Amino acid sequence: MSDHAFSEVEREAVYKAIFSRRDVRRDFLPDPIPEPVLSRILGAAHHAPSVGFMQPWDFILVRDLGIRQRIKAAFEQAHAEAAAQFEGAQRETYRSLKLEGILEAPLGICVTCDRDRHGPVVIGRSQNPEMDLYSSVCAVQNLWLAARVEGLGVGWVSIIDHTALADLLGLPDHVQPVAYLCIGYVTFFRERPELEDAGWLDRTDLKTLIHHDRWGQHD
Amino acid sequence: MSDHAFSEVEREAVYKAIFSRRDVRRDFLPDPIPEPVLSRILGAAHHAPSVGFMQPWDFILVRDLGIRQRIKAAFEQAHAEAAAQFEGAQRETYRSLKLEGILEAPLGICVTCDRDRHGPVVIGRSQNPEMDLYSSVCAVQNLWLAARVEGLGVGWVSIIDHTALADLLGLPDHVQPVAYLCIGYVTFFRERPELEDAGWLDRTDLKTLIHHDRWGQHD
Repeated sequence: MSDHAFSEVEREAVYKAIFSRRDVRRDFLPDPIPEPVLSRILGAAHHAPSVGFMQPWDFILVRDLGIRQRIKAAFEQAHAEAAAQFEGAQRETYRSLKLEGILEAPLGICVTCDRDRHGPVVIGRSQNPEMDLYSSVCAVQNLWLAARVEGLGVGWVSIIDHTALADLLGLPDHVQPVAYLCIGYVTFFRERPELEDAGWLDRTDLKTLIHHDRWGQHD
Repeated sequence: MSDHAFSEVEREAVYKAIFSRRDVRRDFLPDPIPEPVLSRILGAAHHAPSVGFMQPWDFILVRDLGIRQRIKAAFEQAHAEAAAQFEGAQRETYRSLKLEGILEAPLGICVTCDRDRHGPVVIGRSQNPEMDLYSSVCAVQNLWLAARVEGLGVGWVSIIDHTALADLLGLPDHVQPVAYLCIGYVTFFRERPELEDAGWLDRTDLKTLIHHDRWGQHD
C-alpha cells in the first residue's frame, strides 16, 4: 500500500514500545543512567513535533538529593489535598496507591515549555495559545517511548503544584513546567496499567470512542 | 544494563520512527486507509498514558467532503487572521507555506478530550486541570508514530478556531478538540521539517536545552 511503510519487524517493535510502555511509580533501581542512553532519550524528545518548529522545551535533569527531597515534599502536600477530595472506599484505595518514585528513581527530568521562545508570534499558535504546551507534551511522549526501549521506567508526577516546582528549579517566569518525570532502570514492567490492575478503572472499549463525521455517529 | 531493554533491531526501529516522523501538509495520495491499518493506529493512540487512567480521548473520523470543506473554510479564516500578525518578508514566507492538507488527505481525525469523563475527581488532575488535555496529546503522538511505521503521513492543523471546529463536529460542551489531524498515504516524507528546510527556524542545539538541577546550570 505504501513504499514508506516500515518492515514487519520494525513495525512490531514500535507497537511493542507503545503497548508495553508503563507509568512506573515503584520498582526503580538506583543504578545511574549511562550518558549515551540519556543522550538518546533526550534526542528522541527533541525530535518531537512542535508548533511552528518552535521547539519550546527544555530538560532540567534533577539528580541532587536535596532538591528531590523538596520536590517530594511538594508532592506530599498536593497528595494530602487531593486525598480529601475522594470519599469512603475510594479514598482508602487512593491512599493505598503508590503514585511517584521521586526519591527511588536516580533521575528526575522536568520537561518545560518556554512560552516566549522565538518571540511572540509563532506559526500555528495564534488561534490556540496552548499549542506550545502540547508540543512539550509530545516531547514527553517521545522520551517515554525511547526510555521504554532502553529498558528505563518513567513515571509522570502530576500530583504537584507547578508553581512550587518552578520555584524549586529556578524557572524564569516565561518558562512553565509541563511534566516532572521520574526515570530509572526497574525490576519490573507491569503487564497492564497499575490503576487498571487495582480495579480503579477499566480500559475503555475503543469502539465506543470512535465516531464517524460527527460526535455520536458510531457506525 | 537492563533485562527490559529491547533488542538492537527493535531499538533502532523505534528511533527510526521518532526521527523520520514528519508533519505532512502536502504530497497526500487519495488512497483510502485499510480498516486493519486504521484500527492499529487508533489502538496505538488508545494505549497512550492518561492521568488517573482517565482515557479522556475520542476520535472523530472525518471522511465526509462537505464537513471537510467547512473545516477548510475555518482554517482559511484563521490563516488570514494569523498572516496579519507577521510583517514584511516573514509575512510573505508565511503566506507561501502550505500548512494543511484538509481536502487532499482522505481522512481527518479530530482527537478530543472529554473533561468530565469518569466524574469530576480524577487522580492527578486536581492540582493541574490541564493534565487530561495532555493525555489526549500523548494519544496524538502515539497515533503519529504508529502512522509513520504504516507509511501514513499526518499533519496537525493548529491554525483553526477550536470553537468553530467543535461546532462543525457536533461536540458536546464538555468535550474539547485537542488536535485536528490530516492523514493519508503520501508520495514523499521529507528528510527534515518543512519549516527547517524553508529557513524559518533552525533546529536548536540540544545541549543548550539541558540544565542540571536548576535552570541555567548547563554543566
